[in-house]
Amino acid sequence: MMLINGKNTTRISALDRGLAYGDGLFETLALIDGRPRLWRHHLQRLDYGCRRLGIPVPDAALLEAELQTLCRQHDGGGAGRLVGKITVTRGQGARGYRPRALTPTRIVSVSAWPDYPPERANGIRVRWCRSRLSVNPLLAGIKHLNRLDQVMASREWDDPAIAEGLMCAQDGSVIEGTQSNLFIVRQGTLLTAALDDCGVAGIVRQLICDDVIDHRLPIDVRALSIDDVVSADEVFVCNALIGIWPVIQIIDEEQWADYAAGALTRRVSECLETYSAASAATSNPVTHVG
Amino acid sequence: MMLINGKNTTRISALDRGLAYGDGLFETLALIDGRPRLWRHHLQRLDYGCRRLGIPVPDAALLEAELQTLCRQHDGGGAGRLVGKITVTRGQGARGYRPRALTPTRIVSVSAWPDYPPERANGIRVRWCRSRLSVNPLLAGIKHLNRLDQVMASREWDDPAIAEGLMCAQDGSVIEGTQSNLFIVRQGTLLTAALDDCGVAGIVRQLICDDVIDHRLPIDVRALSIDDVVSADEVFVCNALIGIWPVIQIIDEEQWADYAAGALTRRVSECLETYSAASAATSNPVTHVG
Repeated sequence: MMLINGKNTTRISALDRGLAYGDGLFETLALIDGRPRLWRHHLQRLDYGCRRLGIPVPDAALLEAELQTLCRQHDGGGAGRLVGKITVTRGQGARGYRPRALTPTRIVSVSAWPDYPPERANGIRVRWCRSRLSVNPLLAGIKHLNRLDQVMASREWDDPAIAEGLMCAQDGSVIEGTQSNLFIVRQGTLLTAALDDCGVAGIVRQLICDDVIDHRLPIDVRALSIDDVVSADEVFVCNALIGIWPVIQIIDEEQWADYAAGALTRRVSECLETYSAASAATSNPVTHVG
Repeated sequence: MMLINGKNTTRISALDRGLAYGDGLFETLALIDGRPRLWRHHLQRLDYGCRRLGIPVPDAALLEAELQTLCRQHDGGGAGRLVGKITVTRGQGARGYRPRALTPTRIVSVSAWPDYPPERANGIRVRWCRSRLSVNPLLAGIKHLNRLDQVMASREWDDPAIAEGLMCAQDGSVIEGTQSNLFIVRQGTLLTAALDDCGVAGIVRQLICDDVIDHRLPIDVRALSIDDVVSADEVFVCNALIGIWPVIQIIDEEQWADYAAGALTRRVSECLETYSAASAATSNPVTHVG
């Protein structure tokens, strides 16, 4: 289920700069009964990323309409949970790094919800990755298509009992998971890594940091060490698909750590659900689903 | 002129991991009368990069045959100079960073030789880029598809009188050009940046550093500062298409510098030409060109 620049196709030009240089960005989002969850926030990040890379921002109404078209074509007419993905590249161009004035490529797709084991909502096991994140403030935070860091880190393990790997920056400070952001709780305060030098600024992380889902959450954005994480009271990871997964164990040869799925993690998780539901209710319903 | 996994097409699946994550690598090479110049060295680098990324190495004879097929199809049957490009991605896969066992995608293309102004062989003007290179030893040196660093740097200027931009690492040490490696000459010694943390290990740079083209070249691989470059006796950039371009001027608000296209640069350039010609003569000729 895919539309490329509005056309029903799954094939793009091999001259697209998204392939040649990873010259583009993407959003992965949850579709609930045909509605993109946290849609406004995804659009804001897409807009921000496009502006930083100098790629024209795609039309929001067009993107939403395309997601809805694809939901309608899906089994069940889009009812229940699906995954939407929006990729925007700088477009198709000749060889050479310098971009000419190009028409961006817009790829919108809808696929089945991942087969996450349901018990992950109660807590997951994670590991430390040896692969570290590339450091570059110019690109930090953007969900761009240069994702070899995450690919290399994800290749480090294949044990389905380990749901996520935690990644450090080059200086050894802890940044995030391979596909999620990381929070720890210490003495009643939420801590998460600053993403000035590397990492992906996830939607859910931003909602938490900006006090959007609960304006009374005590939050501190700062450098986190491995010791900070190991000695934390609670640990959780988050992204726009999974919401919140509490971490109950970090498996490692040297720095084993166990956590309870604690009170503050539960509170953030509930606030996120409440906010997401309210946010969905105020967006345009997809009238054809049902 | 393109073959994708041996098929005459210019379109690939939008699910290819080369597009989704930049999960692959490429070679750009000169084709002289249908023969890939420095072919063995390109193959060695491709092999090395594939192994580091964990992507199966494509068959060398197959790649050469595909380049020759495309040369034959080109205007003039491949006579004169053409540009070959080989891209290898991990293949087409489902959403998610972790690679499953996939069949790599092999994209081989041949295009016209770039319209470089001929006077560049006598000397070029360059500038300093504000965009710095991402630092990650795990990926340093590989000519992978995560090239947003070079894209962002190339966007900084559009003056055709400036042929190249010089890029620094995050710590401000000078590494390379956006599409070339950089050498300086100081007191009769060639100096080039170590690429342990960032940068692309170009074929021509490697030939120079490994004493392949001239075993008597005094060469030192080390960290280079902006002052080292500004105060150098000679400066040149190199890559597999251009060979050697002497730098005659670095244009900058603060660190203006002029150079003569000096003796050691000329010697390296001549050695490279001699080596390339000899290397081409010993490879299989393309019998159908003429």
